[in-house]
This record gives sequence, structure tokens and C-alpha cells, in this order.
Amino acid sequence: MIDNPRLQPPGDPGLLGWLRHYRLAWLSGDLTAGLVVSVMIIPQSMAYAMLAGLPVQIGLYASLLPLLAYALFGSSMSLSVGPVAVTGLMTATLLAPLAAIGSGAYLQLAVWLALLSGVMLFAVGLLRLGFLANFLSHPVISGFISGAAILIAISQLPHLLGMPALPDNPQQWLDDWQPMNSWVLGIGLVSLGWLFYARSLLGTHLQRLGLPPVLATLLARLAPIVLVVAAVVFTLSLDLNAYGVPVVGTLPAGLPSFFWATPDWSAIRSLLLPAALISLVTFVESVSIAQSLARRKRQSIDADRELLALGAANLGSGLTGGFAVAGGFSRSVVNIEAGSNTPLAGVIAMLIIGVILLTIAPLFAHLPLVILAVIILVAVTPLVDLASLRRAWRYDRAEGLTLFSTAAGVLLLGIEGGIALGICLSIAGQLWRGSRPHIAVVGRVPGTQDFRNTKRHLVETEPHLLALRIDENIFFANTKAIEHALYQALRDYPDTREVLLILSAVNHIDSTGLDMLSELTESLADRDIRLHLAEVKGPVMDHLEETDWINEQVGEVFPSTHIAFNTLGSQKRPASSDLET
Amino acid sequence: MIDNPRLQPPGDPGLLGWLRHYRLAWLSGDLTAGLVVSVMIIPQSMAYAMLAGLPVQIGLYASLLPLLAYALFGSSMSLSVGPVAVTGLMTATLLAPLAAIGSGAYLQLAVWLALLSGVMLFAVGLLRLGFLANFLSHPVISGFISGAAILIAISQLPHLLGMPALPDNPQQWLDDWQPMNSWVLGIGLVSLGWLFYARSLLGTHLQRLGLPPVLATLLARLAPIVLVVAAVVFTLSLDLNAYGVPVVGTLPAGLPSFFWATPDWSAIRSLLLPAALISLVTFVESVSIAQSLARRKRQSIDADRELLALGAANLGSGLTGGFAVAGGFSRSVVNIEAGSNTPLAGVIAMLIIGVILLTIAPLFAHLPLVILAVIILVAVTPLVDLASLRRAWRYDRAEGLTLFSTAAGVLLLGIEGGIALGICLSIAGQLWRGSRPHIAVVGRVPGTQDFRNTKRHLVETEPHLLALRIDENIFFANTKAIEHALYQALRDYPDTREVLLILSAVNHIDSTGLDMLSELTESLADRDIRLHLAEVKGPVMDHLEETDWINEQVGEVFPSTHIAFNTLGSQKRPASSDLET
Repeated sequence: MIDNPRLQPPGDPGLLGWLRHYRLAWLSGDLTAGLVVSVMIIPQSMAYAMLAGLPVQIGLYASLLPLLAYALFGSSMSLSVGPVAVTGLMTATLLAPLAAIGSGAYLQLAVWLALLSGVMLFAVGLLRLGFLANFLSHPVISGFISGAAILIAISQLPHLLGMPALPDNPQQWLDDWQPMNSWVLGIGLVSLGWLFYARSLLGTHLQRLGLPPVLATLLARLAPIVLVVAAVVFTLSLDLNAYGVPVVGTLPAGLPSFFWATPDWSAIRSLLLPAALISLVTFVESVSIAQSLARRKRQSIDADRELLALGAANLGSGLTGGFAVAGGFSRSVVNIEAGSNTPLAGVIAMLIIGVILLTIAPLFAHLPLVILAVIILVAVTPLVDLASLRRAWRYDRAEGLTLFSTAAGVLLLGIEGGIALGICLSIAGQLWRGSRPHIAVVGRVPGTQDFRNTKRHLVETEPHLLALRIDENIFFANTKAIEHALYQALRDYPDTREVLLILSAVNHIDSTGLDMLSELTESLADRDIRLHLAEVKGPVMDHLEETDWINEQVGEVFPSTHIAFNTLGSQKRPASSDLET
Repeated sequence: MIDNPRLQPPGDPGLLGWLRHYRLAWLSGDLTAGLVVSVMIIPQSMAYAMLAGLPVQIGLYASLLPLLAYALFGSSMSLSVGPVAVTGLMTATLLAPLAAIGSGAYLQLAVWLALLSGVMLFAVGLLRLGFLANFLSHPVISGFISGAAILIAISQLPHLLGMPALPDNPQQWLDDWQPMNSWVLGIGLVSLGWLFYARSLLGTHLQRLGLPPVLATLLARLAPIVLVVAAVVFTLSLDLNAYGVPVVGTLPAGLPSFFWATPDWSAIRSLLLPAALISLVTFVESVSIAQSLARRKRQSIDADRELLALGAANLGSGLTGGFAVAGGFSRSVVNIEAGSNTPLAGVIAMLIIGVILLTIAPLFAHLPLVILAVIILVAVTPLVDLASLRRAWRYDRAEGLTLFSTAAGVLLLGIEGGIALGICLSIAGQLWRGSRPHIAVVGRVPGTQDFRNTKRHLVETEPHLLALRIDENIFFANTKAIEHALYQALRDYPDTREVLLILSAVNHIDSTGLDMLSELTESLADRDIRLHLAEVKGPVMDHLEETDWINEQVGEVFPSTHIAFNTLGSQKRPASSDLET
């Protein structure tokens, strides 16, 4: 999708191209989308702040400047940036070893984490190092997201059950049954039911009531804010606080002030790895969301500009005391469905959230925490991606295993451990496959110039000419296997006098491979067998050109197997000695 | 070389085949070789024991049972097994953090290390897991050996200079000049001169004196024992002890007793990683020596039996209180040159060393340590392999860098750090190359069925047909690069209506690659461009067969590029829409 001129976004592809070429016709769509998105993300942002172990207003603060920053730098016309479930979880688990949740130090570290990952993303974008993220394979990303979603869901269970924390063992479960607050559980289950109903059936039911499909879908998406408003009203009117239902508590009115703190360098040093991890996940997730959205609208995105935009968004979040932000999938989909044309929709959403912060925000103090937990639970359920696991497993057992192990690693070893395990496994899988090369003895398809595997096709061969096609790069992990396969083939074809290695599928030979080939050629020569090559690729030949092997040991190098067969097949050398005696 | 029936060792390839089919004609060669090798390895074994931080007699103890064990299990007719420089160094550096050199605990740990690595090697042989060693590339092995040789040489400098240890900084060098013992330095330099002369010129000079070439070479190889005898006589007659020349000290007469100690499990657990490392190096080095020797004699070796034999040899060494052993290059070469035909030569060497232990061994107590240091220095000098570094660097910068970094890593980070760094770098290099695939737009060589890179050859193309050959497996590290290259090619050939991906050099497509191809096909379809495949390899097709991509999205799959060109080149589809508006 990248850099494709036919698929440009509306307007110029450069910075702020959408603004310089803004058309009035886009405005109504952007206004509607801004309104809908802001209403949708208010409960979400508060919930993800709670997930991150922060006061809920921090989630709202993190929903202001990032939207403006993304509008300035971003290349996607649809991506909506703000607090998301995964950055919330990562903030909580990465900071947990460094400071006590709820403390002032914790709050400061969360802000520094956002600032630091903002700097990293921006720097990586300026240095055009975004390609480094390519080393995360899809099974690793998918496994990470699924594992993180499960981890998030588990973290919300205490809020749902009205317990301070999850018990450690089954006995404690029984003992702690009593402390569960049935009011909390009741509210939680009803809210869960409402949100799942809203996601699955509400849209259809609204359509049956005569609403146009687009409007019905949009209204169904706003179920969380309806829940929030209802819960606040309910709590105030029934005085649920008296029944021990935990609520948000105080929530200051007004816009955030700018964050300022003298940097504590030792704390910042301990944040380097967490910030790098959160940057990696933010980038990979946001760009893949932006790409899939751009494809829907036949637009394109620029990965390096996304890095700059995500960096600026995180800096913006940190500057107003917010935490790490990323592009979110559901909020971006709502953004598109509500008719957004440009990032102006995001700027409008920011303005609306600002107004809400200045006016009615303190009312959210009466919101039961269980409502936020339910919103989180419903949001992360679809992230557990069993379909990907099934597909990966069916396509390739090793990749299915990598996906599963990454998810299990996130659950059992933590986020860093899970990602590290996943990366190691995908690299090991790659090496493992390379170490078991497919090697075919080939022959000519009668009457053609095509050569095929003798085991899969009916082909012609010459008894004194053994033609082997090596279907893998020749490198340290497979030199022994290739050597072994060649000697096996020589046992199967004992009259061989000429060996032809067809290198059409060999894109690289490393020095271990070269040493093996050289020793092989020498020991074939001892047995009066010559080694020839065919279809050596240009870049491989460029490397081999100056080696003693190709200049002194190898027989002939043929441009095609066809020519090699015609040359070597017709002539049979007299044996220079009889090795069998 | 492995498993090759034409190149069998004399006799049956099975266990003890050489003994069951022993011919009397081989006996004189084996006797001579046994005598020559035993005389050669006595000073060497004592020297390597000193290098390992052990009493010199331990080196002689480690030269007994291993020779018998290897004769029972080994598959090489020439490999000579015993204390070698690298296992000596590894014993010293791996045990240094665990116990004080010279203490009883240290001695016990050295024995446990040999036993443990014996068990590991034997088990890996039984489980046929020897292929794991294939993941050590030649640059890593070569860099490790060079780094270890330099480390060994540095460790011997104090002995050569007559100082207790090397000073830490230049100022200390000046201050410590006085404590250097000029007697020691003098003896050292004369001995060094003698051994280097023996290695370079003595053989030729002996030939000039009328000796036959083979005998002259053999005698020159015995220069170390001449040096040892001369040094003992010299020390005794001049009473060098009085001048502060350190000597071996006490050396008990008699054969070693069997080792027995209650295992200290916590100590053994701390030896697991060192034992694994020493096993890995022992196996890789010994097998590569055995293979190169077997090639000289047109014999073959069996890697799994080598594992059993090396395991048994280390168990044998440990059982009599010896330290870790491996196949040695110089002792094996002398073994061949002296005429050995079978491992009986090793058994004879063992008997001779046993006799020496029972008789004149105590005389070695008067041997100055500087003599052993000189023997070590001269032995390891050729291991610093600058030629390999030059060759690797010329062939591929990345591999030269891996070799150099491994050597530097061994020197600066230690043995474990150096090997780990080398393995990481060779894997990273492999991924890095895979992430930058060569992708060629190809056309037909006029009048043939061959297709070549448009940039390297003069070929025919069709304006509406873009044929791309992807010269690399499609996997997570290069999906973005391949996608990018394809869009770049579409910009260069704007009239493209059909894209043909030629997969003749693609041996594997992972699920990340499959996802990319599927998204690519979809977005090409949006632009009314169809994607086709040609020359898909059998194993790749086996994987793709059940995917939605190949069944629903891809146009046609052609067996050859030739057929694809004939089919797609002749027909031009009418455009179904005009995307330019």
C-alpha cells in the first residue's frame, strides 16, 4: 500500500495535505464523526486509564493533544489515536515493578513512559528505521494480542466480582466468596448483558424499528455511553455507595495542566526497555490497523510518517499528564462508519472532550468501577483470536505453535517474556526449516526443456548424469544435510560420473556452505566424478566469482539445465581409474 | 563423507570392525605410531594440564583410558584423543568462578566436568542429536578457535617471563620489571627458538644429513620431548631451583586410582552449562578434524559414533581423575605420519604412557614450568587463523565481521559470551540477508524458453504483463520489502494488467508472507490487475493448496514461465473500469 501514487488520500500526500486541499463537502462527515467518536471514547478512555492503574481523568487527558498531533503528522485519513487496551495493560505491567500503583511516583512514571516512547517513535521515524518492526512475524503479533487480551480480562475480574484482588488458590476462593459484593456482581452482569446485546442484536432491532441501517449501527455503537449515563443516574438515585459499590470517586473539573517534572535519570533509565517495547507494539498495531482501514477506502499510508505521528501523539499525551496512546481499531472503525473524511474529525472529537472536561466531567465521579471493567471486558473479548490460531496451525504446525507459545508466554512469563519467546521461536522456526532443505533429483520432461523431480513426475534421466536441484539457500544450518543427501543420491545412482547441481532456488551461499561444496567437489574428484553447476543466479555468481572453488574445482557452469543436459548427457567420459578394486 | 560405502575404513564399519578384521600387516605401522605418539603427547599432556590449572600428572592420567574408549567406539581410524589446548583453556576459565585454582575442590570439579560432558556427549550420540552442532557456522568456529588461542598464549606469558601474574597496567609493568626472572626468560627464549626451528627447518636439515624424508619429519616432531629431557638434565645438573626457576615440583609415580566422590549436586548443577559448552566444542572440533583426516585416507566417519566415542573418552578420563579430552589435530597428524592403520596405535600409546607413569615419571618433577609454557605457546600459534578471517571477509563482509566479533568476544567477554555473540551474529546475518530479497523483472531471451532479469540481459517483455521473479523465501522479515518492490515495479510499468510472480526460487512461504500476498492480491484486484503464479515448487504448493488465497484470489498457476508468457502475453483483457478518473 505504501507509496502508491494511484491510491493517494484525498489531497496532497505530504504533511497536512488534507488541510491544504480541504473541501467543504467533507465537513459534515467530519463533524458527525467527531461527535460520535468523542461520545464513544469517553467511557473507553476512562476504562483504559483504570486498566493502566491511573485515575480515570488521565484517560480523558490522553484523548486531547494526541488527536491534534496525529492530525498534523499522520498519513491515514481514518486512524483514531488515543488510550487503547494494550497500552493500558503494558503501562500497568511494565510499571508495576517500579512503583506502587496509585502513588504519585507511579503517575509520574506513566507520563515519562509516554514521553519516552514518543521520543523513540519520533526518532525511529526520522531515522527511517521502521523496517525493524518487520522482524515481528504475524503469529507473534497475533499471539501477543490474544495473550494480552486474556491478561486484561483476568485483571478486570476483581472489579466485576466486587473483590479487592483475585485469590491465589482454590481454598481462598471458597473463603473469599463472602467478601464478593452481590450488588457489584449484579450490576456487572446486567451491564455485560447489555453491551453484548448491543454488539450482536441491537443494530438489527433498531433497523426493525425503522431506523436506516447506518444510523442503527452507529446508535448500537454508543451503547457504552448509554450505560455510563444510566449507571451514574442509578448510583446517584439509589445511593449505591452505601451498599459498598466502589465508584470512580473524585474527578476534577477543567483541562489538564501541562506536565512538568525534573527528570529523574535513574528512573528514566529503568523505563528505556519498557518504552521500547510499548513503542514497538504501538507502531506494529497502529500501522496494521491504518493499513487495513486505508485498503477499505483505497487510500495509502506511509509507515515512516505514521512513526512521526505516533511519536508526536505520545509526546502530546505526556505533555498534558496523559499515558501511552496508540491507534485503536474499534474507535477508528466507528470514525469511518460515522462518515469521517479527514483527521479533522479527530480534532473535533478533541474539542468536544475538552468541553466535557470543562463542564459535566465531575459527574463521572459517581460511576461504579464495575461499569468500566465491563466496558474493558467487552472490548477485549474479540481480541482473543482463535481463528488466527486455527489458521496458522492448519497452514504450518510450527507457526501455530509459535502463536500459541507467544500467547502462553505473555500469560505466564509476562509481556517482555512472551514477546521475546515469540521472536526466538519464529527465528528458530525459520532456521529449522532452512536446515531441512528439499533436494530433488530431476530429469527432463519428455519433448520439453523443462526439468522436474523424478519422484513427482515421469521424466527422462541419463545413468551417468546425476542432476540435483537444491531447493534452499546453502548456509551453515543445512550444509551437512545437503552433503548427506548428495551421498544418498550417489548410492541410489551408482553409475554417476557427472554431478550437476541446479542452483535455480539458491539465493545465497554462505562461507560454511562454500567450504562444504569445496570439500565435496574434492572428494568427488577422488572418485573421478566431476561437479558442474547450472542456473546460478546473478547475485550468487557475483559472490562466487573470485573463489578458488568455482575457478579451480568446479567443472562447467551452465546457464540452463537444458544446455547442461545436452552437453553432459551426450558425452560419456572414459573412466580415468577404477575405484572399485 | 558420512555413510559412504565406497570409502569405508579398513574392515567392517560397525563397532570394533577394525579389530574383528585386523590384518597382521597393519601391526608394524600401529606399533611405530603408538610409540611416536606416546613420546609426543607426554610433554603436551602435561602442558595442557598446567593450562587447565591442574597438576601435570593429571594430563598423563587423561591420556590413558580415553585412548582405549575411543578405540572401542570411534569411527575414525586416525583420530587421536586426549588433553588438547582448547579443553585445557575451557576447563580453567569455566571453573575459575567456581573454585580456587589448585584447591581440592577445583580438582574435583575438573573431574566432574569431564564426567558430565562425557555423559552429555554419549547421550546426544544415542539420541542422534548431533545435527544440533550444525548451527555453529564456520566463521563462529574459526573465530572461537582464534580467540581461544590468543587467550591461551596470553595466559602463558607469566610463566615465560618468570612472573607470578600479568601486571594490570603499564605503570605496574615498569615497577614489575625487576621481579621478572632472567633465568626463566632466558630458558624460555632458547626453548622457543628451538621449537620454532624444529617446526620450520629441522626436518629439511635432517634430510640433508641423509635421513629419509618420513623419518626426518617424524624426528622433527619429537623436538618437544628432546627439549623436556634436556631441560630435566639441565635443571638437575645446574640446580636451577636455587636461581628461583619454578619447576613442576612433586610428581607421584604409579597409575592413577579410580576417581570416587559423592556427587555434590549443587556443584554439578553449576557445571551443566560449562559441560554443555565443552561438549559442543569437543564434538565440533573433533569431528571436523576426523573428517579432514578421513578425507586424506579416503575413509569415512560417522558423526553419531564419534559422539559416543568422545563421550566414552571423557567418561574414561574422569574415571581415572583426568580432565576433559577431545580429538587433537597435531597428535592425529603425527599418528598418521608415523604409519598408524587402526586405533590399535592409540591403545599401544596408552600402554607406553602407563609404563612411563610406573617408571620414570617422577623425574618430570624437575621440569621447569617455562618449558611447558613454551610448548603451549608453540602449539597454539598456528591456531590463530588470519587466513580464514581474510577469506571470510573477502567472500562476505558480514561473515568476516562475525568471525572477528566471535574472536574479540572470546577475548573480551569470555568463552560463553564469545560463542553466544557469534551464534547470534550468524543468525542475525542470515535473517538480514533474507530481509533484503533480490527481485527481478524478467523477460524472454529472444527465440528461447529462458527468462532472465531485464536489468542484466536483453530480453522481450509485454507491456501489460509484469513478470517478477522473487529470489528468496517469503517470510516475515521480507514481506514488506517484497510488497514495496512490487509497487515500485508497478510504477515503472504503469500499463500492467497481469502480474506474474515466478516462484522458482521460493522454497517456503510463511503465514506472514501468505497474509501479505493475500492483501496484495486484493488491492491489485481493486485496480483491476490480476495476480498469477508460475513455477510454484511442489512442497510450497502442498502448503498453499488449502488456502483461500490460492483457491479464490489468485488467477492462474502455470507450471512454467514459458507457458504463462504464451497464455497471458497473447490475450489482453478489456479494462473492466477506469481507475484513473
